[in-house]
Amino acid sequence: MDVADLFSPIIEDLQEVEKAIFKHLDSEIKLIPTICEHILGSGGKRLRPALLLLSAKLFDYRGEERIPLSVAVEYIHTATLLHDDVVDNSVLRRGKKSANSIWGNEASVLVGDFLFAKAFILMVGCNNLDILGLLSNATGDLAQGEIFELVKTGDINTSINDYFKIIEKKTAVLFSAACEIGAILANQSINTRKALNNFGKNIGIAFQLVDDALDYISTDNVLGKKIGTDLEEGKVTYPLITALKNSSCKEEYERAKDIFFKDDHTKEEIDYLKSFVIKNKGIESTIESANEYINKAKENLTDFKNSEVKDSLLKLADFIVKRRF
Amino acid sequence: MDVADLFSPIIEDLQEVEKAIFKHLDSEIKLIPTICEHILGSGGKRLRPALLLLSAKLFDYRGEERIPLSVAVEYIHTATLLHDDVVDNSVLRRGKKSANSIWGNEASVLVGDFLFAKAFILMVGCNNLDILGLLSNATGDLAQGEIFELVKTGDINTSINDYFKIIEKKTAVLFSAACEIGAILANQSINTRKALNNFGKNIGIAFQLVDDALDYISTDNVLGKKIGTDLEEGKVTYPLITALKNSSCKEEYERAKDIFFKDDHTKEEIDYLKSFVIKNKGIESTIESANEYINKAKENLTDFKNSEVKDSLLKLADFIVKRRF
Repeated sequence: MDVADLFSPIIEDLQEVEKAIFKHLDSEIKLIPTICEHILGSGGKRLRPALLLLSAKLFDYRGEERIPLSVAVEYIHTATLLHDDVVDNSVLRRGKKSANSIWGNEASVLVGDFLFAKAFILMVGCNNLDILGLLSNATGDLAQGEIFELVKTGDINTSINDYFKIIEKKTAVLFSAACEIGAILANQSINTRKALNNFGKNIGIAFQLVDDALDYISTDNVLGKKIGTDLEEGKVTYPLITALKNSSCKEEYERAKDIFFKDDHTKEEIDYLKSFVIKNKGIESTIESANEYINKAKENLTDFKNSEVKDSLLKLADFIVKRRF
Repeated sequence: MDVADLFSPIIEDLQEVEKAIFKHLDSEIKLIPTICEHILGSGGKRLRPALLLLSAKLFDYRGEERIPLSVAVEYIHTATLLHDDVVDNSVLRRGKKSANSIWGNEASVLVGDFLFAKAFILMVGCNNLDILGLLSNATGDLAQGEIFELVKTGDINTSINDYFKIIEKKTAVLFSAACEIGAILANQSINTRKALNNFGKNIGIAFQLVDDALDYISTDNVLGKKIGTDLEEGKVTYPLITALKNSSCKEEYERAKDIFFKDDHTKEEIDYLKSFVIKNKGIESTIESANEYINKAKENLTDFKNSEVKDSLLKLADFIVKRRF
């Protein structure tokens, strides 16, 4: 199943968002649209705008604001990608050279700032202080999540608890904000807003769990970025944490730890760690946990009446775990 | 004259702002307050909050919002400093080691993002869409100014026109926004808002002109950062542009250009370029231009009745050119 099939109820909205994404990038400084078009045109799935639009449509909201707010959410996401690639020294992003590897870290930092600002300009234009509050808090959480991840880099004792704190902030908050915005636009009750927010949070957590599993098992071609990068960067994610916990062979456990602490890794060492994680059910438990969050997400929608849009949201939740991108 | 003397009408407000600046930095991730306190506690003059407070007081506005908005403006400024230091690879900031040289570029980028977000959270809390619009546009201009400066780095043919475009955006917009916010809070007319905005813009341009002159003539101790850094970084500023224009000796002109294009400079080369700039009236014309902007700034205030606060603003304008920090 292609992700685009899930978006059929909002296909026209998404086309409008796609145009608007590129329309607001103009600047007399040509490097700005060049870098923005590079990263925004590199095959992102527009998951966050899609969630906002589906959520708005769940309540039959058809006001104009859904378009600029979808763009704002995608700009915030893209700004964090530009800054992440600087933080991680990434060379690939969605199968293309990353912006920082072409134009340098300086330009990536500043163009990220430009996109954050543009997102806020679009949000202010929508005159809704609730949404402005939600998205400025989400932006603060994104930064805090990234910083916490940075602090925990190289710390083999990172706990499951720390891991979930990191991914809730760095990934799930923007999913939950996107979903809640649809409900806010449609003037829904606090409880309904909360339900959509939780739906977004739960699929966001599942999304990141799957991402962290794919980093161990996908191939470069499918994922569009170098795999095994979490290991190379010293990021301790769910698959490794659980594998270390599950390992009953002291020798293998110590070898895995020794490899983790090395600055550079041979292909054999990376392969050993991957096998260690797989053998000790690191991937299995990660997908299991992701599935639990997807089930919670589906429960968040039980009170809403059945519809084509609700169906899309439920299928999207399933797709999050099945995806291989 | 110490800059603090100019702030006497708002001394209590500034103390309140100072407390509030540190109050909002709390996070369970301790690296965040650590880095923020390092840079926010390093002797910044709080010029932008002071302008906001003086402008508000010019119209007798005493509402609560002036405090969080002053903090927001200082956070935005500080976020750009953190990102600038990454872009410029700076090792010193206000006489202390820069955040990026202590905690790395990664942390500086992300903590800058955190401060941008905090600024917007504070702004949203003030419920004023005019101010939100003004400051989100200002933030976009800041990024554009920095990017334009980056694009022009190493371009010896940077025109005076380009130079002013850069400094208006990277420096003057936040001064003008700070001044205009005071007038917005006090419900002043569009014309009054415009007058305060122009006052801020003109002193902002003068401030940057003086900054660029000081980079050629100050000493490390006074300026609190390495001087001659613009040259080292290939930044072509007003003093160099005018010196090249004024030079009538082809040999000296060519030597200055040759030195500019070298990747690394000996002390002798830096000294030669400084003498070249001074000899060809680069510093004189820069200060002259700064004075013209200060005069324009004073004219922007002619329609307001005389008061202690207006007097402070006028003296502050003069101080901008006389300062040696």
